[in-house]
Amino acid sequence: MDQTQTVEGRGSEKLPHDLVIVGAGPAALSAALYTSREDIETLLFEKGAIGGLAAVTDWVDNYPGFEKGISGLELSEQMRKQAERFGAKIELGEVQKIEDQGKLKKLTTTEGDIYAKTVLIATGSEYKKIGVSGEDEYYARGVHYCATCDGAFFRDKKLVVIGGGNSAAQESIFLTKFASHIDMLVRSSLKASDVLIKELVKHKDKITIHLNTTTDAIVGQDGKVTKVIGTDKNSGQKVEFPTDGVFVFVGLLPNTKFTEDSGVELDERGFIKTDIHLMTRVAGIFCAGDVRSGATLQIASATGEGATAALMIREYLETQERGPLPQPVVGHPQLY
Amino acid sequence: MDQTQTVEGRGSEKLPHDLVIVGAGPAALSAALYTSREDIETLLFEKGAIGGLAAVTDWVDNYPGFEKGISGLELSEQMRKQAERFGAKIELGEVQKIEDQGKLKKLTTTEGDIYAKTVLIATGSEYKKIGVSGEDEYYARGVHYCATCDGAFFRDKKLVVIGGGNSAAQESIFLTKFASHIDMLVRSSLKASDVLIKELVKHKDKITIHLNTTTDAIVGQDGKVTKVIGTDKNSGQKVEFPTDGVFVFVGLLPNTKFTEDSGVELDERGFIKTDIHLMTRVAGIFCAGDVRSGATLQIASATGEGATAALMIREYLETQERGPLPQPVVGHPQLY
Repeated sequence: MDQTQTVEGRGSEKLPHDLVIVGAGPAALSAALYTSREDIETLLFEKGAIGGLAAVTDWVDNYPGFEKGISGLELSEQMRKQAERFGAKIELGEVQKIEDQGKLKKLTTTEGDIYAKTVLIATGSEYKKIGVSGEDEYYARGVHYCATCDGAFFRDKKLVVIGGGNSAAQESIFLTKFASHIDMLVRSSLKASDVLIKELVKHKDKITIHLNTTTDAIVGQDGKVTKVIGTDKNSGQKVEFPTDGVFVFVGLLPNTKFTEDSGVELDERGFIKTDIHLMTRVAGIFCAGDVRSGATLQIASATGEGATAALMIREYLETQERGPLPQPVVGHPQLY
Repeated sequence: MDQTQTVEGRGSEKLPHDLVIVGAGPAALSAALYTSREDIETLLFEKGAIGGLAAVTDWVDNYPGFEKGISGLELSEQMRKQAERFGAKIELGEVQKIEDQGKLKKLTTTEGDIYAKTVLIATGSEYKKIGVSGEDEYYARGVHYCATCDGAFFRDKKLVVIGGGNSAAQESIFLTKFASHIDMLVRSSLKASDVLIKELVKHKDKITIHLNTTTDAIVGQDGKVTKVIGTDKNSGQKVEFPTDGVFVFVGLLPNTKFTEDSGVELDERGFIKTDIHLMTRVAGIFCAGDVRSGATLQIASATGEGATAALMIREYLETQERGPLPQPVVGHPQLY
């Protein structure tokens, strides 16, 4: 076990990182801005796009601070540059495994093994896709996965909702606030709870439920979604639903595979559990953003958690050096 | 008891508000943006400045999304306009009392009594001042109250810290990351815990502690703080400390007086306790931002909590109409 290997970004000295952040979405970049601004040496690992899901969101209307909204790409770029301005380093690569070795955490990555005093897991979640033609082409520009984020763009418009579970039911009801009409395509039968099914029925003036109906293609014209093509499994007939947009609610996959041997605890849905200070069951490993159990999947909440996690990480590092304080200090939240 | 009085902003109908937010700082405006965007009718009450402490902060360097930072006033204005764009109404006035009447909450205000289905308390906290000349004049432009927020502006600069309790001790140690030297002025003796006093002593190359030393005036020139004048109580002599900035850590006052008869629970320091869903002990009364027990006093955390509280308030309102769900729905956090 070599805990003293040369570490990229720390010169030629053989030192562990103060903080390694897994991911580079809003929660990660917010935490990195805070920690690097306070001279906590910070390295981010990102295997996909910097900015995470925010970066591929066409327009973000509800991140506080931008009167008219901001494009997801521009917001992500601003967050990246801001974190880098204070010294955060971003490395492209994948963290494959985390091992708790007490004071240090060992991370196995595609770029070699590295060591860290603290780790922040901010890998986010991925919306499950249905894998039909048009889904990727119109991603975030007519095909959406989050009603809270994008529902308000469809005021007085027609929508198609795909899915038949609790999320699909609850979000369809929510979307009736905006949409003029919703066609809900359910592959087999409704799997939602009775309370929600009863509620769906109450909204039958706006929601038409199509059971046993597959979704085969999302079709558009001039860059806009115009219809969904499906199959009525009872009759075998093709069916078409003219629409202004599609919401897909078939599940959410938290990115946690690499945490398997870390000792971190997951909830029954696979999200990472933390205490109120955003620390996981493993001392020194923290979690923030969409991968955390209880996440709201909102950029504002993710950046807020990133900032809070950064303060907790600072407190953890100070406590490691100094020992715990007998009581919390106001305005300086304590871990213990 | 008249629950049906005419309510400003709801036309001539006699209806309670969906949501009344007490305060109009970052947590409040963030929540208002979310709720009003989703057609939850929202009224904010503000007795002071819209934007709260953020509005009087000269430069905000650490709110994610602005590469080079943004003035506190501009950030507050953007947040206000954004919330108003979606229909939030802001009323100038003071909420003096909240009473829980079950399904409805009664708010006594300087503008008359109003009723609400839900209330969000986001009144923030005020830093205690020492009340000397120059303190207000250089507020946020040389006189500061939050090391996490403003410490990084004083890299390689001289500082004066005022206070002798745990906060003053912990923040002075933190400020050694940036400052070239710190004079710590303590009115009588150090009241900090032994762990922190031991730690302070370890930093004696950077921190000089002046016991029994009052702070009498903060003096500046050309818009910049240049020195602090005090009195050495042992000798009775005037003493002067040339400095680039002053940090005051003499306490924090959460704005909670109006909650006295509401049933809301405070922690031992007077901050409002919530569960992990940001609901207080009173069903339908929520809390977010700097007035909440456990607050980090960061704008990012406050806006994050505002967004989270908004989703919880939506869920609470839906649950009141529909009844609780048997299990949580992924991506749609549940209150119960």
